[in-house]
Amino acid sequence: MFNKMCIIGVGLIGGSIAKASRQHNLCQQIVGVGRQLENLQKAVDLGVIDTYSTKINEGVKGADIVVICTPVGSFEKIFTELKKNWSEDCLYTDVGSTKLSVINSLESVFNAIPSNFIPAHPIAGSENNGVEASVENLFRGKQVIITPIEKTTPKAIQTCSLWWQAMGANVSEMSVMHHDEILAATSHLPHILAFSLVELLKNKQDKSETLKYAAGGFKDFTRIASSDPEMWSDICIANASQIQKLLKEFQHQNEMILNLIENLDKQGLFSLFESARKTRNDFLKMQLEQ
Amino acid sequence: MFNKMCIIGVGLIGGSIAKASRQHNLCQQIVGVGRQLENLQKAVDLGVIDTYSTKINEGVKGADIVVICTPVGSFEKIFTELKKNWSEDCLYTDVGSTKLSVINSLESVFNAIPSNFIPAHPIAGSENNGVEASVENLFRGKQVIITPIEKTTPKAIQTCSLWWQAMGANVSEMSVMHHDEILAATSHLPHILAFSLVELLKNKQDKSETLKYAAGGFKDFTRIASSDPEMWSDICIANASQIQKLLKEFQHQNEMILNLIENLDKQGLFSLFESARKTRNDFLKMQLEQ
Repeated sequence: MFNKMCIIGVGLIGGSIAKASRQHNLCQQIVGVGRQLENLQKAVDLGVIDTYSTKINEGVKGADIVVICTPVGSFEKIFTELKKNWSEDCLYTDVGSTKLSVINSLESVFNAIPSNFIPAHPIAGSENNGVEASVENLFRGKQVIITPIEKTTPKAIQTCSLWWQAMGANVSEMSVMHHDEILAATSHLPHILAFSLVELLKNKQDKSETLKYAAGGFKDFTRIASSDPEMWSDICIANASQIQKLLKEFQHQNEMILNLIENLDKQGLFSLFESARKTRNDFLKMQLEQ
Repeated sequence: MFNKMCIIGVGLIGGSIAKASRQHNLCQQIVGVGRQLENLQKAVDLGVIDTYSTKINEGVKGADIVVICTPVGSFEKIFTELKKNWSEDCLYTDVGSTKLSVINSLESVFNAIPSNFIPAHPIAGSENNGVEASVENLFRGKQVIITPIEKTTPKAIQTCSLWWQAMGANVSEMSVMHHDEILAATSHLPHILAFSLVELLKNKQDKSETLKYAAGGFKDFTRIASSDPEMWSDICIANASQIQKLLKEFQHQNEMILNLIENLDKQGLFSLFESARKTRNDFLKMQLEQ
């Protein structure tokens, strides 16, 4: 499918893309680009990439696909570097968790957004990070959202979709704004709440005792609070407006719950919890059907 | 250890206690008490209990241990029934998730709280409920908190502790208030937040689409939103003051995060997320050491 793949940012997602692309014979050669030599060497030692460079212009030489897998806050700098050797024969794409910020960064670097860049977001991950955590089947059965803009070429859309499908993912297309709105709800807000809850408990005097009596529910609920703080502070900035809107709605709903508790309104609480349980069970059913 | 055990409320916890007690030869005979004949018959068919009754006064006849495993909102009625045939030779205990409410119910039913009732709370469970979900090793390696009051007899404390230890649990003792404060943080608040988040998403126009693109993080985060609404509305009422206090603190912390996002304060967000991640990782280490 591709001759030379260049992966910028060889961590959990970049490494998993490399492994999956190799497993399914989707490219001949994989070069990694990153800032830390040690990490790049580890990726070579683990057989994830073939070679590496710390310089983007060296890494992308001759590549027919370039995949940006770094935190979204770094994209503008990366685009500035890529622009110097932009190739019309190459497919450029990313895996960022926010998409409007990617379009904004492209706009600020290029006069016109290149038609061979296709914004994409695989809905897959783990609270573990680094190339050691990468796995070849991370995307199997998972959703990948692509958010082409008007001028993206049909060929770029098609090639990117086929590539993700070949790695086992289901690809859907939606608008940039719609993506950011949905992901704020299903991913960004839950991560922020998990960080927030754990931070709240940290500041309790009896922190170690509190944690001692935490059970499985707490463990699962806060799993995502072990996520990469660099990546998540970037996401908060990159999708600020959608996240703010939703977090305010969430605060408002909690105020309503506070009122129900204050009024000892058991029936009101029961109805709300019952309704939430039904929705959550619908979600499980949908996942099984996928 | 016991001759006849009476379990009031044969669901996930009651059923698991029956199975664990039988597995470790801790009692000769187990009678279940409940309101629904169908459920009690199922418990007999599954071999969880030996016999059953829908009447408390029948079920407790000759029992030397009575364990209350119903939602905490039902305790006062149950105590009123138990009082009619209270036996000084029997150990009475419960598994309720809140403890001050249990003491309050005891106080309102008895003139003086009986010295052979010992409030207890196993920190174990599942979002699944019903006797079908019960498992004999649910308490193995788990914490059980007992909250005796001043007049609880040493014998009751010792017998209850030995019984839980025999089922594989680690028993600690603390004050009623302290229990309710800790559990509000590690269990009650996370459950409320999970219900609240799922309810928020339910009310979005594109609910099914939203859920379609939810990934593993969302699934884990909201697992506890599948919990029993009856049990959890009871808990909110029973531990209202601690939950209100903490939920207000949580709201306050979210306001702070909202400010950081509004100011695009990446460093502030990074520090907070980094601190939360460290705490969460400490929690994992503590769990491994237990």
